[in-house]
Amino acid sequence: MGEPEAKRIKTEYELVYWPGIPGRGEVVRVLFEETGTPYIDAAKSKKAVEAVCSFSDLKNVGDETNPPKFAAPVLKHGELVINQLPNILLYLAPKLGLGPASGDGVYHLNEIALTILDGFLNEVHETHHPIATSQYYEDQKDEAKKRSKAFREERLPKYLAYVQRVLDGKKSGEGGWLYGGELTYVDLVLFQCIDGTKYAFPKTMEKYREGGKYDGVFKLYDAVKERPNIKAYLESERRVDYAEGIWRHYPELEEDEGEK
Amino acid sequence: MGEPEAKRIKTEYELVYWPGIPGRGEVVRVLFEETGTPYIDAAKSKKAVEAVCSFSDLKNVGDETNPPKFAAPVLKHGELVINQLPNILLYLAPKLGLGPASGDGVYHLNEIALTILDGFLNEVHETHHPIATSQYYEDQKDEAKKRSKAFREERLPKYLAYVQRVLDGKKSGEGGWLYGGELTYVDLVLFQCIDGTKYAFPKTMEKYREGGKYDGVFKLYDAVKERPNIKAYLESERRVDYAEGIWRHYPELEEDEGEK
Repeated sequence: MGEPEAKRIKTEYELVYWPGIPGRGEVVRVLFEETGTPYIDAAKSKKAVEAVCSFSDLKNVGDETNPPKFAAPVLKHGELVINQLPNILLYLAPKLGLGPASGDGVYHLNEIALTILDGFLNEVHETHHPIATSQYYEDQKDEAKKRSKAFREERLPKYLAYVQRVLDGKKSGEGGWLYGGELTYVDLVLFQCIDGTKYAFPKTMEKYREGGKYDGVFKLYDAVKERPNIKAYLESERRVDYAEGIWRHYPELEEDEGEK
Repeated sequence: MGEPEAKRIKTEYELVYWPGIPGRGEVVRVLFEETGTPYIDAAKSKKAVEAVCSFSDLKNVGDETNPPKFAAPVLKHGELVINQLPNILLYLAPKLGLGPASGDGVYHLNEIALTILDGFLNEVHETHHPIATSQYYEDQKDEAKKRSKAFREERLPKYLAYVQRVLDGKKSGEGGWLYGGELTYVDLVLFQCIDGTKYAFPKTMEKYREGGKYDGVFKLYDAVKERPNIKAYLESERRVDYAEGIWRHYPELEEDEGEK
């Protein structure tokens, strides 16, 4: 049972994610775009919402080949269907030439990806929905302000410092990339996560940039942004604007008590 | 550079984690205990806190072989040093005979582990610290009550239903295990996570158990608990009692408005 690996290599990737927001799916798109890998973006189809919801349907117990999923993003590749963003990245990295297929590097890159996603994606989402994802932002605004203050002042600099430490370490190598002296998927993960966090907290991120303690982080962000395929992607209609979703901009979440 | 894999196989594993709480480190311990794998538990040493803090020290940029870490748990195996709980599990699984070394199963198991950890570990931590990990529980108690209510009523049943769906699916196979008809590391992850969540929310978990919709989940929990090595471990002094940490029990977080 199961299709041969050789057959699957020629199969197109399909990303299933919510339409209208960059969100977690965007991290996957950036990998495809940088490497010029063809992919089907189900978020652009008319049945995008239906496709996403079919996976979290309580009656969905998976199929012969795959267990059921909790939530999107979901990646389809031939008969294989997987979810969980860090897991999708782990699967794609060696296939797209963005990471090793075996050895210690697999685990080093995975830990870096998980940490960046914790800090600049998961914790950013918590800033505007600290009580319940099912409730409106407006109904948890006071709590969101408190959580955002802790994020801006404590958590964010801790994660920025972590990324800078990775860049300052010997395993980062030359060239300003995070690992092994060449571009890997974690550099792309960092790019998208910093981009989203800049959208959500522009004043705060500008302050940290100007502070000069995390120069390597912002230099890496700039370097990825200027890569030809990424640059073309960001200028294309394929790139969706930020809106509701993981990275949201609410000006009041950058203001301290007493500020306007 | 780098030691041969053959040499490392004979090297003892060392877990670096906070002393006095089960926490994230406990999930790793359960894997070692079930498989009878010798390991050094740095949490039991007098310099446990020092060891943990050395990794998150802002001056620590890693070494020749490893990038720096954001936080514990950290696993040392020969010259390899890795962190991030799902990453440590991914590394250990094939070495301890608790998962395949390659193929689709790697990604299916990783997605199941990540989802269980999201639901029964990360989100449980958020219930008592929805505003700031750096602040006392008492200073965010009101928000914790709100978050806990949403967790108990919406998130928890959604995750329990997910695990039940995995068990009901074809890929689970016979025998009541989550994947492929035999015990894998995700069954052990589920055991520890359900155990911790039962400690944190005993009334709520008992209600869901009695409700009968997630019988497979609780049956699997019981089955792991009765395995000889796990049973012996739980009765040993090596098993640390729940206390402050990820899984905490605050009775008021199970009470709705108007209840005593």
